[in-house]
Amino acid sequence: MTLSVNFARLRNKIDLLGEVGSDEAGGVCRLAFTDEDRQARDQVVGWMQNAGLRVQIDQIGNIFGIRDGLQDVPPIMTGSHIDTVRGGGKLDGPYGVLAGIELAETLNDHGIRTERPIVVAVFSNEEGARFQPDMMGSLVHAGGLAIDDALSATDQQGISIRQELARIGYAGTTACGEIQPFQFVELHIEQGPVLETEGLSIGIVENLQGISWAELTLIGQSNHAGTTPMALRRDAGYGAGAIIAAVRDITAQIGDTQVGTVGKIELAPNIINVVPGRATLTVDLRNSDAAQLQKSEKLLGHFLLGLAEQEGLEIQQKQLVRFDPVKFDPGIVDMIEQHAGRLGQSCKRMTSGAGHDAQMMARICPSAMIFVPSRDGVSHNPAEYTDDKHLENGANLLLNVVLAMAETS
Amino acid sequence: MTLSVNFARLRNKIDLLGEVGSDEAGGVCRLAFTDEDRQARDQVVGWMQNAGLRVQIDQIGNIFGIRDGLQDVPPIMTGSHIDTVRGGGKLDGPYGVLAGIELAETLNDHGIRTERPIVVAVFSNEEGARFQPDMMGSLVHAGGLAIDDALSATDQQGISIRQELARIGYAGTTACGEIQPFQFVELHIEQGPVLETEGLSIGIVENLQGISWAELTLIGQSNHAGTTPMALRRDAGYGAGAIIAAVRDITAQIGDTQVGTVGKIELAPNIINVVPGRATLTVDLRNSDAAQLQKSEKLLGHFLLGLAEQEGLEIQQKQLVRFDPVKFDPGIVDMIEQHAGRLGQSCKRMTSGAGHDAQMMARICPSAMIFVPSRDGVSHNPAEYTDDKHLENGANLLLNVVLAMAETS
Repeated sequence: MTLSVNFARLRNKIDLLGEVGSDEAGGVCRLAFTDEDRQARDQVVGWMQNAGLRVQIDQIGNIFGIRDGLQDVPPIMTGSHIDTVRGGGKLDGPYGVLAGIELAETLNDHGIRTERPIVVAVFSNEEGARFQPDMMGSLVHAGGLAIDDALSATDQQGISIRQELARIGYAGTTACGEIQPFQFVELHIEQGPVLETEGLSIGIVENLQGISWAELTLIGQSNHAGTTPMALRRDAGYGAGAIIAAVRDITAQIGDTQVGTVGKIELAPNIINVVPGRATLTVDLRNSDAAQLQKSEKLLGHFLLGLAEQEGLEIQQKQLVRFDPVKFDPGIVDMIEQHAGRLGQSCKRMTSGAGHDAQMMARICPSAMIFVPSRDGVSHNPAEYTDDKHLENGANLLLNVVLAMAETS
Repeated sequence: MTLSVNFARLRNKIDLLGEVGSDEAGGVCRLAFTDEDRQARDQVVGWMQNAGLRVQIDQIGNIFGIRDGLQDVPPIMTGSHIDTVRGGGKLDGPYGVLAGIELAETLNDHGIRTERPIVVAVFSNEEGARFQPDMMGSLVHAGGLAIDDALSATDQQGISIRQELARIGYAGTTACGEIQPFQFVELHIEQGPVLETEGLSIGIVENLQGISWAELTLIGQSNHAGTTPMALRRDAGYGAGAIIAAVRDITAQIGDTQVGTVGKIELAPNIINVVPGRATLTVDLRNSDAAQLQKSEKLLGHFLLGLAEQEGLEIQQKQLVRFDPVKFDPGIVDMIEQHAGRLGQSCKRMTSGAGHDAQMMARICPSAMIFVPSRDGVSHNPAEYTDDKHLENGANLLLNVVLAMAETS
């Protein structure tokens, strides 16, 4: 049996939700636990109830819309998040949540009851733009962060999540992690250029890159740019440039899925005619293979030792984030690929370079993800966009995959 | 005949003037044409009058203290400036001015009258920290900038020099450039590490580096640091790093007096997990040889063309400052060297990497400079410091050199 969603109904919800927190530049700002987040939650909860889903809120504010099954067994869960970064788009997060609600409505339209329950999840604070860490709601659900620690996190104004959840009315009573899914699948935009570049409609995410973020501080000697001979310099800015080049070299040496980025630099005093005495920069290394990611970190470490020695710099290194790569469930990946083929959708297996709630859920149940293309690979940006035909394909694939999952025992 | 200054008297003036505009960090802030500048000018004018100098103020606020000679012929001029940068030191500028006043007092002590007049100059706005261009007073004096253009320069608040000179009472009536010196010599701290590194007391500045300042803007594509494969990036931050490395390579290739510095970088969006879409950086190239300076600019230009092509970047280049190298007068340089030898002072001929009023005066009369060491090469900083023995050596050398100049016809 092949079902299709009512795409106009889904598209309408995407556009309506995109109005909540919209800014003049065409972007969306719905930071976690703000008034805009509350307004979006209220909207989504209303749609869940209209779709006949029973709504539960847990202690970290995760929202679960439950469609009962014929059997009282662990459910199939799908979903994503509805918080955004500053100046984000309409699709990053909401697409997966709203496609989940749409699949429930489509099943209703056809009078279909599944063996297993189906749960549509909205995970709190996936972006981490206001409160850290990111992917918080799914991390707490998966038991990776104690609820008290999560509730005590504060924003830059010192306001805690505990206060904000009470204020916006989403301090739920369900214990975190109470709903243990049988399987989990998340639909999301790619946020990268791979599918568009290859002209494909669907990505089947089989694994997720490991991430290593470091902040490096280089301390040299600030000096006059005219009067200080090259041989007498301890130039922290030169050190920063050499590290940028080394990161590129390391990615070339390791190849495959390895990426490396220096996204942020601050020089001091940052004046045209002064040799920089201090540089702070970040290095973002990612690989889907744990051993290769470690190798990239080691290569960088060796390079820094040599650089410090050669340039007379003191180099301080601070690890900001470290996640090992995640492998999704091969059985679910196979099954998604079969359904995409059956639906005549062009697709490929791929690696996600971004973090997602599905990586947290993979800790407690077999999980995988479905991607649709992002135009120009752009996300976290008002220009974030995906063609309707791809959005429809993704929603139809999710519908058929979840339906099949919910019929297995 | 060998004369010696009264160093205690000079040291006392340096310390008293260093109090004017002093800040809590031990630095000095006397931006041009502010109340602090006025207070320092009043102090220096008082000292000039006590030393029997006739004071003239010109239209750009340059102060001239004139000691008449036995003959009415073009004078020997010495001097420097008394304005500072924010957080500057006590010596950069004032040392040369106050040593000039001290030499007049020493000549008075010994009842010496010289053949030529001697003029101690205080040039307005050498630093250019508030009003551009820098070295303004000497540039106007030398005819390189029209007085009306200089007076119309405004600071960031839109206040003009014309307004400020009237307000602080230094809008003089002497026409700029009226005093045409026979020869000019400036005493200054080195502001670099060369003399200290080589254990010398005196530098005889025979030339001044040419300066080329450019601001480069690199435009690439801002992208997700995890999801964008290396081959699909247009990374403006990588471009900045490659330019930093290229500037180092160019200085090594040209060698000799060539220096090159990337002192300032701004990335956008400057976020750890975003490939930089834009980078703005400055390149400061200097060489005492005009052809070699041009060569360094050409090598950089070639590199930028290749980089733009290879990385898919648009590179915009803006020339901010361009001064050709200046050669000081060989006769004066020889004469300073002979006097240093006669006084038993360790010295070497050297190139100045910084700009000074003497380079403007070199346009209209034979000129040269005397340097004393800067501890750790530090200047434009509260930590700016020179040992008393070097300060005394420099003042004694200036005294004997100016005395000899003033006796020549």
